Amino acid sequence: MTTAHVGHLLDWLRDAYAMEQQAEVMLKDLVERLEHYPQLRAHMEDHLEDTRKQQVLLKGCIERLGSSPSMLKDLMGRVMAFGQSVSGMAVSDEVVKGAMSTYVFTHMEIASYTILIAAARAIGDNETQRVCESILQQEIAMAEWLRGHLPEVTQAFLARSATPGMNAKR
Amino acid sequence: MTTAHVGHLLDWLRDAYAMEQQAEVMLKDLVERLEHYPQLRAHMEDHLEDTRKQQVLLKGCIERLGSSPSMLKDLMGRVMAFGQSVSGMAVSDEVVKGAMSTYVFTHMEIASYTILIAAARAIGDNETQRVCESILQQEIAMAEWLRGHLPEVTQAFLARSATPGMNAKR
Repeated sequence: MTTAHVGHLLDWLRDAYAMEQQAEVMLKDLVERLEHYPQLRAHMEDHLEDTRKQQVLLKGCIERLGSSPSMLKDLMGRVMAFGQSVSGMAVSDEVVKGAMSTYVFTHMEIASYTILIAAARAIGDNETQRVCESILQQEIAMAEWLRGHLPEVTQAFLARSATPGMNAKR
Repeated sequence: MTTAHVGHLLDWLRDAYAMEQQAEVMLKDLVERLEHYPQLRAHMEDHLEDTRKQQVLLKGCIERLGSSPSMLKDLMGRVMAFGQSVSGMAVSDEVVKGAMSTYVFTHMEIASYTILIAAARAIGDNETQRVCESILQQEIAMAEWLRGHLPEVTQAFLARSATPGMNAKR
């Protein structure tokens, strides 16, 4: 366990914390906007709860390593900008793009926790490894649910958009 | 099969074409920059070849529907900006962020083809459905390879970065 290793682990934990803060903003926005897709909305709402709990867990890992959540790192600042541009966008197929963006963001999370687990294992930080493994399972479940429901959301959107007088957008 | 349906399918095909153009830029940049991670580099190189073939297939689908690849749509323009900011970034853990970004971008592709397959099926465009199903399999294979190798890349990066005189960055 070297100082360099701990430095990288801390950087990645801080990135993950910032990422979950952005996930909260995105999910909250989607939940508030979705009107005609109740199943998708309910699932996003559940995941919003998980996201808030994940932030607390990550903060605990960062503090145990003697640090605190802080400024955004470079890449994450850009991911944030991506997330923010997706939130509140005014496109005609908002529900499809919203589900797709959430699916993509969830894989940013899956990659992050996969990297964090490898780093925590290399360092021998068992508690961080355990926390990240449990969060990873929640993100994988979210990703699988979204992928399974993308075709259904697409078909519902197309059916609504072909029906006169029906709002398909969100 | 309504005109509205075809319009959405065409929009999404054009988005996918622009996305694969951006994938080419990102992968080419990563392949050129990676120095110390030959296995990752070789796999990115193979996928770069697939990416170019996918562009030709998508262009064929767009043309069969009587249109042509054209201007970027809204969301895609933003994804492009994300891709461009990832390319050529000067961070100390470039190899880790590069593998992670490729993994995330690959899931943007997986979501896009999943949506396109559902739309092509709704319309009865069997050829577009078949093309998108074959591309989807390539993207899933790439995503699985990356996820399987993320821990290894992370460990190799950490080991190199803890060794004096060794360049870990890329």
